[in-house]
Amino acid sequence: MKHFDDTICAPATSVGTGAISVIRVSGPDSLRLADSLVEFRTGAAMSSEGYSLKYGSIPGVDDVLVSIFRAPHSYTGEDSVEISCHASPYIVQTILQKLVSAGGRMAEPGEFTRRAFVNGKMDLSQAEAVADLISSGSEAAHAVALNQLKGGYSSELKALRGQLLDLASLLELELDFSEEDVEFASRAQLQNLLDSAVLHIEKLLGSFKVGNAIRSGVPVAIVGAVNAGKSTLLNALLGEDRAIVSDVPGTTRDTVEETLTLGGTLFRFIDTAGIRESGDAVEKIGIERSFRCIDKAQIILGVLDGCAPLEEVCKSCSEILGRVAGTDKKLLLLRNKVDSYDAIAPEEFPAVDRSYNCFELKYPAFGTYNLSPVQLAEKISDYLKRKGVPAGGELQILDISARTGEGLDALRSKLIAAGGFADWNGATLVTNLRHYEALERALDSLRRVSLGLDRKTPVDLVAQDLREAIYELGTIFGAVTTDELLGNIFGRFCIGK
Amino acid sequence: MKHFDDTICAPATSVGTGAISVIRVSGPDSLRLADSLVEFRTGAAMSSEGYSLKYGSIPGVDDVLVSIFRAPHSYTGEDSVEISCHASPYIVQTILQKLVSAGGRMAEPGEFTRRAFVNGKMDLSQAEAVADLISSGSEAAHAVALNQLKGGYSSELKALRGQLLDLASLLELELDFSEEDVEFASRAQLQNLLDSAVLHIEKLLGSFKVGNAIRSGVPVAIVGAVNAGKSTLLNALLGEDRAIVSDVPGTTRDTVEETLTLGGTLFRFIDTAGIRESGDAVEKIGIERSFRCIDKAQIILGVLDGCAPLEEVCKSCSEILGRVAGTDKKLLLLRNKVDSYDAIAPEEFPAVDRSYNCFELKYPAFGTYNLSPVQLAEKISDYLKRKGVPAGGELQILDISARTGEGLDALRSKLIAAGGFADWNGATLVTNLRHYEALERALDSLRRVSLGLDRKTPVDLVAQDLREAIYELGTIFGAVTTDELLGNIFGRFCIGK
Repeated sequence: MKHFDDTICAPATSVGTGAISVIRVSGPDSLRLADSLVEFRTGAAMSSEGYSLKYGSIPGVDDVLVSIFRAPHSYTGEDSVEISCHASPYIVQTILQKLVSAGGRMAEPGEFTRRAFVNGKMDLSQAEAVADLISSGSEAAHAVALNQLKGGYSSELKALRGQLLDLASLLELELDFSEEDVEFASRAQLQNLLDSAVLHIEKLLGSFKVGNAIRSGVPVAIVGAVNAGKSTLLNALLGEDRAIVSDVPGTTRDTVEETLTLGGTLFRFIDTAGIRESGDAVEKIGIERSFRCIDKAQIILGVLDGCAPLEEVCKSCSEILGRVAGTDKKLLLLRNKVDSYDAIAPEEFPAVDRSYNCFELKYPAFGTYNLSPVQLAEKISDYLKRKGVPAGGELQILDISARTGEGLDALRSKLIAAGGFADWNGATLVTNLRHYEALERALDSLRRVSLGLDRKTPVDLVAQDLREAIYELGTIFGAVTTDELLGNIFGRFCIGK
Repeated sequence: MKHFDDTICAPATSVGTGAISVIRVSGPDSLRLADSLVEFRTGAAMSSEGYSLKYGSIPGVDDVLVSIFRAPHSYTGEDSVEISCHASPYIVQTILQKLVSAGGRMAEPGEFTRRAFVNGKMDLSQAEAVADLISSGSEAAHAVALNQLKGGYSSELKALRGQLLDLASLLELELDFSEEDVEFASRAQLQNLLDSAVLHIEKLLGSFKVGNAIRSGVPVAIVGAVNAGKSTLLNALLGEDRAIVSDVPGTTRDTVEETLTLGGTLFRFIDTAGIRESGDAVEKIGIERSFRCIDKAQIILGVLDGCAPLEEVCKSCSEILGRVAGTDKKLLLLRNKVDSYDAIAPEEFPAVDRSYNCFELKYPAFGTYNLSPVQLAEKISDYLKRKGVPAGGELQILDISARTGEGLDALRSKLIAAGGFADWNGATLVTNLRHYEALERALDSLRRVSLGLDRKTPVDLVAQDLREAIYELGTIFGAVTTDELLGNIFGRFCIGK
């Protein structure tokens, strides 16, 4: 355990409209600082046991509750105190100023967790999970972060690294006995171990797509012609989610990012600002922009305007399918505005005037009102065939009304089925780009090892590649670190963590 | 101590970007609820001592630290626990749901503090001080709230009420002996006691103006002609304050209210939206609106446009003075835009064109550029004399430039001198409108008592008035309460307090 000389302090709770705020202090002087600020009723903090609470007064500032932690039984592994005061920015600021005057230092972002890592309280991937846990907004993201925090993820990687270390030992052995031509038997064993490690890493790399979607949200793009009702649909989906979130007292949404939790899975609507072009924007620019969204999305909601002439609907659908076909993206085709169909009986069509929001209903020959979803899908398939656009399988269309909410429950179920993680089963997932890249580099090195064994490359060169793979795996949970790496990781934490 | 049957829970910290969140639980089942949720490593919460901390795990949710409090040694006076978890809205929500499933109930706003009051942990004015303490944004407001929280304010009122109770005893004595004509000696004593109580209450009522200004901010109005630079001045003053506030990590400004702390005193700019009319609004409406602000303000910043013709400046100043004269408001007269004077030497005036922001400089005969502040004040005084407007003493004008910041330090010093509480000396201040109104009613009753004694009104009628005064004082710290009163007070608290 490394000994830090200085004692750091920072607010640990966000300053807002709460009842209490907590200030965290960690380092060798923590208890002395507490005693210099607080007049305790029951003896000094210095003479208190760990895991005890003390009530006291900071004269002229506030009455406080102080939690005492003694090394190594604290978050950081050092002597620590947490000062709980009334939730006033003025009080928090005053206490922090007093702590600094008494010899404390304002903590850098993530410095408490960095000390916890350096002091062996958690490994690097567990430290990263702390930040993930705080920002996780869905059940799935939370479960993944919690598993990583509890060390399940690290232990799998540590086991894998252990296998590679065994491999390295075997190679060393071969190096020692290279004069004696014993290599053949061990080579088969080496190759087996190697194949198993490569498979394992490939599986982990493959999990990143799911893991990243769980952590950052499944990327969804809503595309379709101008006025098909894309913004209304997004608002209808988000509106309900927002209502649910605001049921929890004190909860606020920090970001204006368009995310939505359905069935425990977070969905993220990408670049929707681009999709939200107004009706008078040039249509072509809007469509181009929507298509760029498609590249980043895992699920496409293709919105067709149920009130538009059939020819237009077919054309719009064809444009969407042209981009999606041949990718592994999931497409959900929606016919929007079906509420307009009920409003008017067919025999009344001639009476519809321009003030009705579906002007096209005046011309039933061009509308899709008289087609069931299956019939519409057939018409579109015919159109696609004529135009030579690949449909990518049988078309399925869901009728919805973003305005009235009709069909939205069915849409939610389809979203969950397309983007949910029902089959995840708690297998280890890579959620972190840094880990993903380290695993990629480890895999590259292992493939060079494999190639080297095949080509009977000199064993010391093969061993060098193997050491690189071991190094890369070690960076994930922090068996090997650099100051730059730690700075990168903890610099992204908030103050007080 | 009243026993509450149910156990309440709520988040105690605001949900934001912090490292940890705290959930507060209070009531007879608190420890049982903690044990039903948390797997502790070191025995059950039920078997733990008060003022101890326990580390444990809520399976699938988070690892938590639980603070144990045992009745009566807690904030509410009941058994309580505080659960400290990672600061994720998802985790906080999940823990609250689990607490409610296990038999807890979400707390109403202010319910923890209401229980603390009902259980005798604090009186009513102390409970009110909790809310004031949390919202206090300046050193002075904080000091007043802390004094009230510590009971200094209540004890003064309790002593006063005690004197009135003594008075009542003397009256009762007189009632008992009324047949025997012993009244005369005790009447003088009664009158003395009464006079002292009336004086005391008058002093307390007189403190409300200062107390309220400390709590809510000293009301300041910025008035002056359109384009005199009022908004620029406000932004210049606020801009620096905002920069200071954002120096504290994690601090955010919740409100968009225009307040400013100078020298430990909060200043509040009233109805500045009204002052901020744009240049193309009808000037007359703007001026009328500004004048309405003057009525509510304690300090008036009268901004004169240093680039406007002298006649206009005099007229604008005359309008301001006409409203301020005869009131006890403090007026600070400012000549703005003095930076424009340095930009152009007098001999260059003819060359100034319309693009220069002080078009009027083209006509030096009408500008104020060639006058010192003292000379300008003399010119304005002459104008006022001619127009018959009372100047209210010698005029003093401060030269400033809201744009460059010139003169703003001097203005700040003048604001502190005009609105600060340097002479406050920690005397008891009434800061709360509820208390002020109760004191007013108590004073009315006491004056009726005094009148009754003078007029030899039957003693039982006098005693009734005295009982009313005692009742009113009792409502302040809660010797007497009603459900409606408590509902009003605690309903304004935040959840979790």
